[in-house]
Amino acid sequence: MGTLIIAPLAGVLALLFAFYKASLVSKSDPGTERMQEISSFIQEGAMAFLAREYKSVSIFAIIMFVILGLAISWPTALAFAVGAIFSALAGYFGMQVATRANVRTTNAAKESGMNKALDIAFSGGSVMGMTVVGLGLLGTGLFWILFKDASVVTGFSLGASSIALFARVGGGIYTKAADVGADLVGKVESGIPEDDPRNPAVIADNVGDNVGDVAGMGADLFESYVGAIVSSITLGALAYAEGGRGVLYGLMVAAAGIVASIIGTMFVKGKEDSNPQKALNMGTYASSLVVVIVAFILSKSIIGNYQPFGAIVFGLVVGLVIAKITEIYTSDEYKYVKEIADQSETGAATTIISGLSVGMRSTAYPIVVLAVGIIGAYLIAGYSSTGIDAVKGLYGIALAAIGMLSTTGMTIAVDAYGPIADNAGGIAEMCELPEEVREITDKLDSVGNTTAAIGKGFAIGSAALTALALFASYTQAVGITSISLTEPTVIAGLLIGGMLPFLFSAITMSAVGKAAFEMIEEVRRQFREIPGIMEGKGKPDYRRCVDISTAAALKEMIVPGLLAVIVPLIVGFVLGTEALGGLQAGALVSGVLMAIFMSNSGGAWDNAKKYIESGTHGGKGSPAHVAAVVGDTVGDPFKDTSGPSINILIKLMTVVSLVFGPLLAQYGGIILKLF
Amino acid sequence: MGTLIIAPLAGVLALLFAFYKASLVSKSDPGTERMQEISSFIQEGAMAFLAREYKSVSIFAIIMFVILGLAISWPTALAFAVGAIFSALAGYFGMQVATRANVRTTNAAKESGMNKALDIAFSGGSVMGMTVVGLGLLGTGLFWILFKDASVVTGFSLGASSIALFARVGGGIYTKAADVGADLVGKVESGIPEDDPRNPAVIADNVGDNVGDVAGMGADLFESYVGAIVSSITLGALAYAEGGRGVLYGLMVAAAGIVASIIGTMFVKGKEDSNPQKALNMGTYASSLVVVIVAFILSKSIIGNYQPFGAIVFGLVVGLVIAKITEIYTSDEYKYVKEIADQSETGAATTIISGLSVGMRSTAYPIVVLAVGIIGAYLIAGYSSTGIDAVKGLYGIALAAIGMLSTTGMTIAVDAYGPIADNAGGIAEMCELPEEVREITDKLDSVGNTTAAIGKGFAIGSAALTALALFASYTQAVGITSISLTEPTVIAGLLIGGMLPFLFSAITMSAVGKAAFEMIEEVRRQFREIPGIMEGKGKPDYRRCVDISTAAALKEMIVPGLLAVIVPLIVGFVLGTEALGGLQAGALVSGVLMAIFMSNSGGAWDNAKKYIESGTHGGKGSPAHVAAVVGDTVGDPFKDTSGPSINILIKLMTVVSLVFGPLLAQYGGIILKLF
Repeated sequence: MGTLIIAPLAGVLALLFAFYKASLVSKSDPGTERMQEISSFIQEGAMAFLAREYKSVSIFAIIMFVILGLAISWPTALAFAVGAIFSALAGYFGMQVATRANVRTTNAAKESGMNKALDIAFSGGSVMGMTVVGLGLLGTGLFWILFKDASVVTGFSLGASSIALFARVGGGIYTKAADVGADLVGKVESGIPEDDPRNPAVIADNVGDNVGDVAGMGADLFESYVGAIVSSITLGALAYAEGGRGVLYGLMVAAAGIVASIIGTMFVKGKEDSNPQKALNMGTYASSLVVVIVAFILSKSIIGNYQPFGAIVFGLVVGLVIAKITEIYTSDEYKYVKEIADQSETGAATTIISGLSVGMRSTAYPIVVLAVGIIGAYLIAGYSSTGIDAVKGLYGIALAAIGMLSTTGMTIAVDAYGPIADNAGGIAEMCELPEEVREITDKLDSVGNTTAAIGKGFAIGSAALTALALFASYTQAVGITSISLTEPTVIAGLLIGGMLPFLFSAITMSAVGKAAFEMIEEVRRQFREIPGIMEGKGKPDYRRCVDISTAAALKEMIVPGLLAVIVPLIVGFVLGTEALGGLQAGALVSGVLMAIFMSNSGGAWDNAKKYIESGTHGGKGSPAHVAAVVGDTVGDPFKDTSGPSINILIKLMTVVSLVFGPLLAQYGGIILKLF
Repeated sequence: MGTLIIAPLAGVLALLFAFYKASLVSKSDPGTERMQEISSFIQEGAMAFLAREYKSVSIFAIIMFVILGLAISWPTALAFAVGAIFSALAGYFGMQVATRANVRTTNAAKESGMNKALDIAFSGGSVMGMTVVGLGLLGTGLFWILFKDASVVTGFSLGASSIALFARVGGGIYTKAADVGADLVGKVESGIPEDDPRNPAVIADNVGDNVGDVAGMGADLFESYVGAIVSSITLGALAYAEGGRGVLYGLMVAAAGIVASIIGTMFVKGKEDSNPQKALNMGTYASSLVVVIVAFILSKSIIGNYQPFGAIVFGLVVGLVIAKITEIYTSDEYKYVKEIADQSETGAATTIISGLSVGMRSTAYPIVVLAVGIIGAYLIAGYSSTGIDAVKGLYGIALAAIGMLSTTGMTIAVDAYGPIADNAGGIAEMCELPEEVREITDKLDSVGNTTAAIGKGFAIGSAALTALALFASYTQAVGITSISLTEPTVIAGLLIGGMLPFLFSAITMSAVGKAAFEMIEEVRRQFREIPGIMEGKGKPDYRRCVDISTAAALKEMIVPGLLAVIVPLIVGFVLGTEALGGLQAGALVSGVLMAIFMSNSGGAWDNAKKYIESGTHGGKGSPAHVAAVVGDTVGDPFKDTSGPSINILIKLMTVVSLVFGPLLAQYGGIILKLF
């Protein structure tokens, strides 16, 4: 019992470390007045977006709070509210620091070079990372200690998921509307460089990097992290009830992960003239190693054998392998990206066909790895001399998710570092700093691109495992021992669940299309109507463009958000709890596939374009490049809006089902029963 | 017992009708010598492809025959062989007539006008249609009467499915490699019209219409038709064992469908100056109506109540509704195609994004309709005052598939008519016939395009229902009462099954890409090297292009074909029969979704291009048109290669599982059990 307190304490430790890193960032020199002005535009835009987003979402949250209180229990409703607030806080704090770190990274690149620039950019990212895991473990740990009720902790998870969905969808729409708009009119039509201060959408584009890639990714992994912990609590309480050992082990591994991530960040030290990628990799490996050692020791001392540790290792290995496969399909050092670049020679159509084909093909190995991981974790954790213990096996799946996510603090730090470096480059460009500054930030940024693709693979893998663990918790919560595919209602649920990621992708893609269209019109208008804008004399109206992205994101995130909450409930109440199980499984399968397909197609197109820009196939401006730009533009909403949103969708639907489980167990399928 | 003989007799009737129609076609005037020469090129190419395809496939078939004989039973192996041969015969005979009907349609348009041209084109199509249903019902009926063993009849279905896969995949690759190659060099690069005799790929393109859209579609629906009958036999024998009533009802409705289709064809009479679409619709409605009436009467007289009839109606309605929804998403009379055309104004990237988005969105309603149909057919057929009888309910799902497919003879006739009219137009162009001839064939062809899109929706819906009915038969055959999603092996199967349609699409799409690339190179070479070719003096080498498509199709169809057979067996033997159930369900869900998505995206792009060509958004040659052509080119393999191949994949995998069911019931999962 007393030991359990270590979990929230580790959360507090993470938060203290985040504050420490944040103060380091704040203390650095923000550079010239012009740099500070540009940076303040970005910060204002990002904060204004967050404020308006949270305001919209709070209406939803309040309604949900009341429903939960009345239908489930007030402690669950309270946990929901705290989960939502924590998620919002993590986003707010992470963005505050990220939007300070960008200009300071630029300045460090200008004044001291690569070493110091990497240090600040990474410190900024690690604030986001440590805040996410700190609040996550603090919340789940405290609610468990206070209520000792799995359904209350699940409420916390639902709060986290709800905010995550809106953050991911809204942020994804925001960033790509701005990006596509800025590029199509700025780079393509008017021929001015990226991040040129004359482009009215340039600030919106930089804001987008923050709200999409920092806050959106953070909320996504916050949800996965919390979900994994919650499922390990739910299943651990059943698998090893005696002395709360099952719950304790999951929480202690998570706590160890926080300490490991802090240690990991210390390994990220740039050296002049060395690849920053190496420094980031060092940090990642170091933290993984620490987790493995601690999980090994704790497995014996808490549980009494090494079986749970085996499940943890399965999770870690699956995560690393999926990340590696993602790299193979999306990096220009392997053949697939080169194939797309080859196909660009015969035009946009063949570029698109080959990119779609690469994305679809890239689903094969990760799925097989995932399948092996699921069965492996189940068997190793559930094995006994008398056969497989199902509940212990399912607990193993939850532990695999914990294993994959234990170093989330480090993963997010590496991930959030990317957009900070990207922003730093943008600021250098907009302030017309010397070429060398941009060179340093470009180098940092290019590393960020690779880590972003890998991070996406990781986010998908962890979403799949988390959703599966939550799904297992759901079956326990509603008390069904079998969800049989021989039942037509289960098949119907499976079909509807499988369809949702397609519908979801369609909605988010067309939202980006519509918003980008508005942005294009606005940028064209400003170029036409503001005198002297192209000569750098007239001042572009950045705020209008920021407003367009903000308004579009807020408007378009509502329908998909509500769908994710309402459809599971409809299916549950109409067709029953088993059909709802089918729905979750269907969404899991097609969701994971679509997410892998879309983010890898997008990543591969992006890098094929960059590969051509590096001078192959005729380089910039060649017909092959024009075709590759088409691919990249199609890939933008694929990889940064629709793909990532699906991660949240599948997790959120399982959490909704889990939270409403008690109610569904009683009233599930009442409508069908009327017939 | 005696009544059962009606089924094979109805099959014979269909074949006699097909011979009669074929002789009508043959007796018509094939036109001038030049027309006959061109037509003979197409016929030679198509027949040469079929011959080589069957030769390749026969190796696979012989190996399979031996395996089945040794592992299952020699009667099953025999049925397999006959099923394969019947499928090949249907393709051979249908193509023979289709490639005669094309030139005679051209001549009729030249000599007598629309009325006669429609008559010949449709007669040609109806030969394919009636041959398919005739051989299908003859085979299944005879094998059932002779052996009274469901597993033997299933062997017939496996034979049909195996050929279907190779025909669909090979035909799909053939036709799109030729089409894309002919268009990109001919229309786009050299600016010569479609079907211009100077284009060396023009014959290959016309051959492709036959091997892809006639033989491929025929094999696809042959498989669905046989599959539906087989599942109604398997489940009917269990649901209403007494007096073989369950089996009898399914076979009698199928027999009624044949008579209904023959009656339907008589309603297809063209009138000068009226839309041929009306004539085709009349025929379709008439045959559906006949089936409904007969099914109603037989339900009471054979089964004793109207419940099975209810299931038949559910199937018919689901088919019609899905076809209508398909039309809404792919016809330029509705908003979605217009939206894509609007987006063409801002370039290729937005055209692609909106087309993908429309395709993904178009999955929603068909899936809901399908889910409702499945539950409805199950409940209405399985209802009793003491609760739902599961086996009768599953039999209801098989009957729904029968209901949807009973008028397959008519469906294929309408469908195969399209490529005949298309070919007729090509011949008119190549023989430089007067403008009026082309106008008539164009009108016939444009109707064919709409029916093709609707036919695809129908093929997908029927594939889903058939696969589901076969899946239900599978669970009965291997004797598992529950395939629970709470088992990790089932989830692993579900994930792997769900992944296969993605992998399959990737492979077939890149096969088209590679073959089209070769074709482009060859056409460019001929334009460069053959003197006087562009002035119409030098003779293009059509045969080289035909060879390229043939070789590519034969080579590239092997891997996907083997995957579809081998993967289910591996999963079954390694992970067990329940995991294999998961695999089938996963493939069903993601397969249906991918098939709808890909064929509707493709159809919508195609019609958006045609809509612009009709004069909107600047018409032919405008920037919007250029963007729309990119969309159409991406859509080609989507709708004509990958999408349709998935239909077969999901059916074939369930049939393979069903045939090997007895073996799997004994040895399933042995490898996992070793641990």
